[in-house]
Amino acid sequence: MTSQPPQPTQPPKEALTFPAAHAALITPYLPPHAQPQPQPQPQQQQQPSPPPPEKAQKTRPHVTLTYAHSLDASLALAPGVRTILSGPQSKAMTHFLRARHAAILVGAGTAVADDPGLNSRLVAVEGLGEGLEGREGGVVKQQQPRPIVLDPRARWAVDEGSRVVGLARAGEGLAPWVFVARGVVVEEGRRRVLEGVGGRYVYVEARGERGRFAWADVLEVLAREGIASVMIEGGGEVINSLLEPAGNGFVDSVIVTIAPTWLGQGGVVVSPPRTVGDDGRPAEPVRLTDVTWCPLGEDVVMCGRIKR
Amino acid sequence: MTSQPPQPTQPPKEALTFPAAHAALITPYLPPHAQPQPQPQPQQQQQPSPPPPEKAQKTRPHVTLTYAHSLDASLALAPGVRTILSGPQSKAMTHFLRARHAAILVGAGTAVADDPGLNSRLVAVEGLGEGLEGREGGVVKQQQPRPIVLDPRARWAVDEGSRVVGLARAGEGLAPWVFVARGVVVEEGRRRVLEGVGGRYVYVEARGERGRFAWADVLEVLAREGIASVMIEGGGEVINSLLEPAGNGFVDSVIVTIAPTWLGQGGVVVSPPRTVGDDGRPAEPVRLTDVTWCPLGEDVVMCGRIKR
Ligand SMILES: NC(=O)c1ccc[n+]([C@@H]2O[C@H](COP(=O)([O-])OP(=O)(O)OC[C@H]3O[C@@H](n4cnc5c(N)ncnc54)[C@H](OP(=O)(O)O)[C@@H]3O)[C@@H](O)[C@H]2O)c1
Ligand SMILES: NC(=O)c1ccc[n+]([C@@H]2O[C@H](COP(=O)([O-])OP(=O)(O)OC[C@H]3O[C@@H](n4cnc5c(N)ncnc54)[C@H](OP(=O)(O)O)[C@@H]3O)[C@@H](O)[C@H]2O)c1
Repeated sequence: MTSQPPQPTQPPKEALTFPAAHAALITPYLPPHAQPQPQPQPQQQQQPSPPPPEKAQKTRPHVTLTYAHSLDASLALAPGVRTILSGPQSKAMTHFLRARHAAILVGAGTAVADDPGLNSRLVAVEGLGEGLEGREGGVVKQQQPRPIVLDPRARWAVDEGSRVVGLARAGEGLAPWVFVARGVVVEEGRRRVLEGVGGRYVYVEARGERGRFAWADVLEVLAREGIASVMIEGGGEVINSLLEPAGNGFVDSVIVTIAPTWLGQGGVVVSPPRTVGDDGRPAEPVRLTDVTWCPLGEDVVMCGRIKR
Repeated sequence: MTSQPPQPTQPPKEALTFPAAHAALITPYLPPHAQPQPQPQPQQQQQPSPPPPEKAQKTRPHVTLTYAHSLDASLALAPGVRTILSGPQSKAMTHFLRARHAAILVGAGTAVADDPGLNSRLVAVEGLGEGLEGREGGVVKQQQPRPIVLDPRARWAVDEGSRVVGLARAGEGLAPWVFVARGVVVEEGRRRVLEGVGGRYVYVEARGERGRFAWADVLEVLAREGIASVMIEGGGEVINSLLEPAGNGFVDSVIVTIAPTWLGQGGVVVSPPRTVGDDGRPAEPVRLTDVTWCPLGEDVVMCGRIKR
């Protein structure tokens, strides 16, 4: 990458553009500033090596929960069915957000169903205002987020044809870290492909219900690896588990795009399960505070923080 | 009522206030102008008498579909559980909308579970702008909407204690018209109470699935009765059936308030059933066009029209 010519100061033709006015509204909900990324390095070890003490992040990463859904809270018509929800400006926003986080996290369901790219395409910010770091002639400097896939049972069949692998090879994205449950055997071919482009399998204790990780553990591993901010994008199961009482304490901000359509019953829906508090009574619904609504084409983007 | 002193030009203490800027954004989605109401008159006949031909409405009423829900599209935690969703400004908006429609329609589920008032409290519009009819010194002149309850099986046990009955008796609302399926026997006590305050039972052919009315029939009866505009407020079943292909052609505008909270799985959810088109393929999701998003406190109000 260092032998590449410097980025042109004009946005390339395929650049997505995002209005500076919107960027300014969203920026207060983003992590303090773009964080340097740990360099992708093929690693042989199964455990993430503890970083030298002076580099260790003492704090949890900033967690941004972000996704797009319909009026009836549906992310997709069905798992794996590509569903056009939001307009081109929302797409630009997603790529802008991805450039502002050190990592992007999805569940195995999304990795298996969608073969997602999980990179950030260059975003041009129209009439770029103050407070946007890393700009170069109106273009937000490209910083690729680290893709993180929660795949406790190692069921995602990553191979040479996977989009993340192609993007990592082309230098257009970082190679993924796949979080698997301790003790799970990863198929050798998958490991070879992933490590060949600088990704790796990371073993995490699955001490939650149904063989799931605890969010505290996931975030602790990320912090230990120097990841200062993570954007959690989906899918339905991941989002719902993060909205539960055991998860939502870790969420720093929520950025939801709502598209004016109804996908109808039976989609992949964001709606947390009802839970019971320590007193045996139904837990209070999760509410947001410090809310900003920002119309974006026919969609709206809602930014907020979880009310404690 | 005619012997009452004229309304003061200052809004009374209990008036809800609604910002004129919001009223101006919403007005394009409302029926052309406030319509005179048919006078409430106790009637003995079971069938609405056909109006004299010169008075007959040739066209369907303007239909505004309007309700408030959570991010996960829930109207209520459960049927009949009073659920605080939106802030005081949204409440003012609801009452403003009610004053701008000739009728307000709900399903039997809402009537039974909520004992709703279905009237409009006086709304003061702050710094009242142009284009608002019926104003009197900053107060939108009170026009009460006719409550319509779709109750094919006549299961709503209306009695002297029902809120609509009390409000009608106090001159603070109109008495309801309850639409029941032709052939259903209405309990005599209920009829007496309803007719005693100027309401009535209206018989409609239940030619839809599961003993339901066709929307065309409901709207035809309203038109015949001189109702030029109706606001359909809920609950879940009524809204979902109106969003189906057989219903959504009748909807002129949609006004949805979204509150930044998740009620969680198991609530009364707005999400139309998936349907199959004439070609045997899944029907396209219903989408809105001409959309305006209007932040209102911590909530947002979305206005739009169904894309044809
Ligand atoms: N519109 C959007 O913004 C957006 C964004 C992303 C995804 N999506 C859509 O969402 C759909 C997929 O959603 P989904 O609910 O099926 O799947 P998902 O949430 O992506 O993945 C669920 C799986 O991830 C693993 N997982 C989740 N939480 C975990 C935890 N705490 N610890 C360990 N493992 C965990 C589990 O794998 P195991 O079952 O193996 O245990 C679980 O089954 C796709 O259709 C995709 O297109 C939409
Ligand atoms: N947040 C809001 O804006 C809002 C507004 C209104 C209501 N709500 C909430 O919604 C909940 C009630 O919703 P729900 O879904 O249980 O009930 P609902 O929609 O109010 O009423 C459903 C019933 O109405 C009758 N009905 C519906 N469509 C009909 C048709 N086309 N023809 C004839 N009859 C028809 C049927 O009665 P039969 O079963 O007897 O056939 C049906 O069961 C309550 O909790 C209420 O608080 C919320």
